[in-house]
Amino acid sequence: MSSTTLPARPNGVDTATLFATLDAVRAQPGLATFQFRATTEWVSGTHNTTTIHGFHGAGGEQTHQRAFTIEADHPAVLVGEDHAPTPAEHLLQALGACLMSGLANIAAARGIDLDGVTAHVEGDIDLLGIFGLDDSVRNGFSGITVTFEVAGDGDPDQLARLVDRAVKRSAVYDVITHGVPVAVRADGRPRS
Amino acid sequence: MSSTTLPARPNGVDTATLFATLDAVRAQPGLATFQFRATTEWVSGTHNTTTIHGFHGAGGEQTHQRAFTIEADHPAVLVGEDHAPTPAEHLLQALGACLMSGLANIAAARGIDLDGVTAHVEGDIDLLGIFGLDDSVRNGFSGITVTFEVAGDGDPDQLARLVDRAVKRSAVYDVITHGVPVAVRADGRPRS
Repeated sequence: MSSTTLPARPNGVDTATLFATLDAVRAQPGLATFQFRATTEWVSGTHNTTTIHGFHGAGGEQTHQRAFTIEADHPAVLVGEDHAPTPAEHLLQALGACLMSGLANIAAARGIDLDGVTAHVEGDIDLLGIFGLDDSVRNGFSGITVTFEVAGDGDPDQLARLVDRAVKRSAVYDVITHGVPVAVRADGRPRS
Repeated sequence: MSSTTLPARPNGVDTATLFATLDAVRAQPGLATFQFRATTEWVSGTHNTTTIHGFHGAGGEQTHQRAFTIEADHPAVLVGEDHAPTPAEHLLQALGACLMSGLANIAAARGIDLDGVTAHVEGDIDLLGIFGLDDSVRNGFSGITVTFEVAGDGDPDQLARLVDRAVKRSAVYDVITHGVPVAVRADGRPRS
């Protein structure tokens, strides 16, 4: 790959800044210590709203350029009002989005010009688990399948290998396939 | 708990339909077989959009009452344009939302009237992993902490126990703590 043959922002990726960022982190690894945060507020029934604004990283406290809000609910067949996707669907979105963001960066770094990329994410789940009706059934998905279609300026194998690399460098794929310790604390506040 | 003392929709939960749904699934367990789906399309750089509409469950194909779209991006410090939360933040949202939806249903079933519930979700991650700069660092979160504040008509212990039960019946908590097999397929489509 010769940098002189790349457009300034291949696939919309600012590769100069990307490589400069990696150099900066190589020199000062503490810049890579991040904490992401989300605050979920109950609305009514299974409907809730999550706000995402501040995070820690790159050596200090940061904020997104605006506070983002994301809603979740259950559909009517799961006794909700269908204001928004279910939390389980949001998890599939997080996986598809993480692999997709990585793929675009990797393609840019390899000088492969993308025309379009789609990822279909499917998760199978037997709700007997969360319904408490069968203790032998797990609460979560039994399995997830992701199917990518990658169109761009490369041979089929080069394009498919972008997905392999995205999988190897995905935060969400790692969490979903390997699991992470989750500590839950609760503070009950009775009516005064 | 006497059903005559409950409002028609405690905490906005249609408990009559909730219990009828559980009875229907007890009689016909195949109704609990679901598949959730999300389709992620690349936009530019780390920016992508996911559409969630159809799913399988309750014995057939279903659709949400409308197609939901969710965006993801990286912030400027991670070489994105900050159009939306990062995929890692979306994962935290999925966790907070799943625990919250379950908690509201459980409170309704127990006849506990909620005044307000907030969950703070924090995930620590060392990006040396996904940057490919230290093979000893995992790609995903090293740990996640969820802190609930549950205000309602109960003693502090009753309110805190709602969170314990939500954890025990959460699909997303199960996936994130225990992991799930993910199969990834890729189809490369060269320019013609």
